[in-house]
Amino acid sequence: MTQATKGPLSGVVVVDLSRILAGPYCTLLMAEMGARVIKVEPPKGGDDARAYGPFVNGKSTYFASVNRGKESIALDLKAEGDRKTFEKLLEKADVIVENFRPGTMEKLGYGWDTLHKKYPKLIYASASGFGHTGPNSKDPAYDMVVQGMGGIMSITGNEGQPPARVGMSIGDVGAGLFTAVAVNAALVHRLKTGESTKVDIAMFDCQLALLENAIMRYTVEGEVPGPLGARHPTITPFQAFKTSDGAIIIAAGNDGLFVKTCEALGRPDMATDPGYKTNALRQKHHGKLEHEIESVLKGNTTAHWLAVIGKAGIPCGPINNIKQALEHPQVAARNMLIEAPDGSGGTLKLAGNPLKMSAFEDPKTRRPAPDLDSDRDAILSFLGG
Amino acid sequence: MTQATKGPLSGVVVVDLSRILAGPYCTLLMAEMGARVIKVEPPKGGDDARAYGPFVNGKSTYFASVNRGKESIALDLKAEGDRKTFEKLLEKADVIVENFRPGTMEKLGYGWDTLHKKYPKLIYASASGFGHTGPNSKDPAYDMVVQGMGGIMSITGNEGQPPARVGMSIGDVGAGLFTAVAVNAALVHRLKTGESTKVDIAMFDCQLALLENAIMRYTVEGEVPGPLGARHPTITPFQAFKTSDGAIIIAAGNDGLFVKTCEALGRPDMATDPGYKTNALRQKHHGKLEHEIESVLKGNTTAHWLAVIGKAGIPCGPINNIKQALEHPQVAARNMLIEAPDGSGGTLKLAGNPLKMSAFEDPKTRRPAPDLDSDRDAILSFLGG
Repeated sequence: MTQATKGPLSGVVVVDLSRILAGPYCTLLMAEMGARVIKVEPPKGGDDARAYGPFVNGKSTYFASVNRGKESIALDLKAEGDRKTFEKLLEKADVIVENFRPGTMEKLGYGWDTLHKKYPKLIYASASGFGHTGPNSKDPAYDMVVQGMGGIMSITGNEGQPPARVGMSIGDVGAGLFTAVAVNAALVHRLKTGESTKVDIAMFDCQLALLENAIMRYTVEGEVPGPLGARHPTITPFQAFKTSDGAIIIAAGNDGLFVKTCEALGRPDMATDPGYKTNALRQKHHGKLEHEIESVLKGNTTAHWLAVIGKAGIPCGPINNIKQALEHPQVAARNMLIEAPDGSGGTLKLAGNPLKMSAFEDPKTRRPAPDLDSDRDAILSFLGG
Repeated sequence: MTQATKGPLSGVVVVDLSRILAGPYCTLLMAEMGARVIKVEPPKGGDDARAYGPFVNGKSTYFASVNRGKESIALDLKAEGDRKTFEKLLEKADVIVENFRPGTMEKLGYGWDTLHKKYPKLIYASASGFGHTGPNSKDPAYDMVVQGMGGIMSITGNEGQPPARVGMSIGDVGAGLFTAVAVNAALVHRLKTGESTKVDIAMFDCQLALLENAIMRYTVEGEVPGPLGARHPTITPFQAFKTSDGAIIIAAGNDGLFVKTCEALGRPDMATDPGYKTNALRQKHHGKLEHEIESVLKGNTTAHWLAVIGKAGIPCGPINNIKQALEHPQVAARNMLIEAPDGSGGTLKLAGNPLKMSAFEDPKTRRPAPDLDSDRDAILSFLGG
C-alpha cells in the first residue's frame, strides 16, 4: 500500500459509514486532502455501490472512482464484538460521516446525543435526503427524487420538452460538497474552541441552495422559470449557437463583450442597433438577436469561429462530449485525469483532485479503492490490537 | 447593522475581491459560517453583479442573494492611498479570495508570491476559469463556457435533442463550493502548522470532478455518454414517468425496491419476469419496462401514485417547479427560505443556509447585502483609523 496523499487534513481520522455517493463523495474529498478515511462496511457485500457497474474483472469502477485512497474494514454493527471494535475506532476518530436515513444511527445506539457524550471531540456529519428535522425527515430519497422535488429539473432541458435530469447526480454530489464544506469548518471550530458539532446536511436543502437566480426570479418577479435549453435565463447573448458543423458557446456577459462579439462576427451594425443596446434589451429581443447571430455563424465551422471569436477576447468554447472534454490539453496540464490500480493488475483513469494547493503535491496516481475488509489488520493494529 | 451570523468560522476575516458568482458563492458560504467577509470593490460600479436583474428599487436582487451578510469598501487598487488601506486590511486578514483572470493580481502587485512573503499567514484563494497553470490558464471563461467544454452539457437534456445547459450556473457555483472546501481545509492546516497555502481552483477542473460515473463509462467502456432526459444512465427504473396529469419520479435503486415497486403498481408479475430480474437486465430492457410501468401510472394522478408508492417505502417524488419547491413544508421546517432587508424598506426571500450545525443557531433573517462602500467607516476603524 502506498502512502496516503498528503494534504491539509493529514492526521485527521474519518470513520466513514456512508454508502453509494453523497457521503462517499464527501469522504473522497477528505481523502484527497490527506485525511485517513476508514470505511466501515457491512460484512455482507459492503457498500451498495460495490454492485454498480461498469465492472472491471468483477470489481465496480463506480465504487473505485469515489472510494480510491480509502481503507475498509467489515464490521457488523449489531454484533457485540464488532461493536467494541467500532467503538475503539470512534475513540481514535476526529469525524464520523454517515448517510443513513435519519433514525438508523439511533437504532444502532450511535445517535449524535449518545456519541457526543461518549466521544466529546468527535464531529458527527450526516448527509440524508431531507435532514434530521421536519415532516419529511424520514422519507427515503435518492438523487433523482431530490432533483425532481428541489426544482432543478424544472429549469433544465429543452424548451417545450419534458424536464430533464442534470446529467450527473447533482443531488448526491451537491450534498457531498456541502458536507465537506461543513466538516472542514467544524474542524476549524474544534481546533479553536475544543467544541465538536453535529453537521446535518439534507440533499433537498442543498438543491435549494444551488438554485441561484431562479429563486430571485420567482420570489421577486413571480416568474416560475422553465427550461431554456442552452440559453442563460437573464444574460443575452450567453448561450449555444449553431455553426455549419456543430455548435459554439458564446458568453458575452456585458455590453463591452457584446460589442466585441458583433465586430468579430463582421456585424458592427448590431452593436449600434438601439434594440440591442443593453442586456435588458438584448434579453427582450433574444429571438431576433439569436437568429441574426446564427445566420452569420452557420456560414463557417465551429473551429473557425472559436479561433476568430476567441482571438477577440470573447469567452467562447465548444460543446465537448466526455471524450473531447477528457482529451483537452488543459486536463493533462492540470493533472485532472489520474490513475489508480484497478485491483486486478490494470489501471483505471479517474477524475483528478480539483483542490489544488501550493503547499501540497498533486500526485498522478492514487491507492486503489479497497476491497471489502482489506485493511482490517492495519486498522486493528492502529487500534492497539 | 445586526451582528454577523455566529458559526464555526467566527473570528475569521476574509478579504473578498471576487465578483459575480463563483468567488462570491464561496464567500457567501463563509459568511453564513460566521466569517467576517469584507468585499473590496472598484469605486466605479463595484461588483459587476450589482448590474444584474431582477431589481428591487434599482438594487440587484441577484447581487443581494449571494452577498447578504458581507461588508463593502470601495478601493481603487491602482491608487496609492487606497493601496495602503488595502494592505492594512491584508495584515488583519486570514484569507483573500479572488476570481480574476490569472495574471491580474500579479499586475496589481498582489500575486501569491508577493503576498506570501509580506503576509505569511494569509491564505490566498483563487477561483478562475482554467486555473493558474496550463496552456489555457489565461483564457476568459464564464459559466456557460466551462459547462460546454467540461462535458456536462453533452449528458444533459432530452434524448435526440441539442445539449442543454444545467438550469443553474453549475460552472460558477460548483467552483465556489470546491473553493470553500479548500479554504476551510487550508484554515485547518494553518491552525495545526502555522503554514498558509495558495488555493488554485479552476472552474473547468471542477466540471470534470463533478462528472461522476460518466467518466468511468467512457474510460472503462469506451462509451461516449449522451443526454438521457430524465433517466439515470446505469440504474433502472430510476427516472420520471408520465401519470394521468403529470409526472412522477420513481427511484428503485436496488432489486428489493424494484420488487416493491411492481407490487405497489399491482404488477407483481413484472417482479418475477426473468427479463427484469437484475438491474443489468432491467437496464437492457429499459424501453419495454418503462412502457409497462407507464401504462399503469397513466391510469391515475401523480398525487394518487405518490401516496401509493410512497406508502410502500419506495423513494419517489413529484417534479416540482420553483414555486412548488419553495412551498414544500420541509423548506419552512428546515429554514431554507430566509429573509433579508432589501435595502429599500422591504424584505427579500433568499435561499437559506444548508450547512446546519447543532452548535450554532440558524437565524431566520440576515443582514442585507451591502451598498457599495457602505461599511467604509467600520472597516477603517477596524484597521485602526
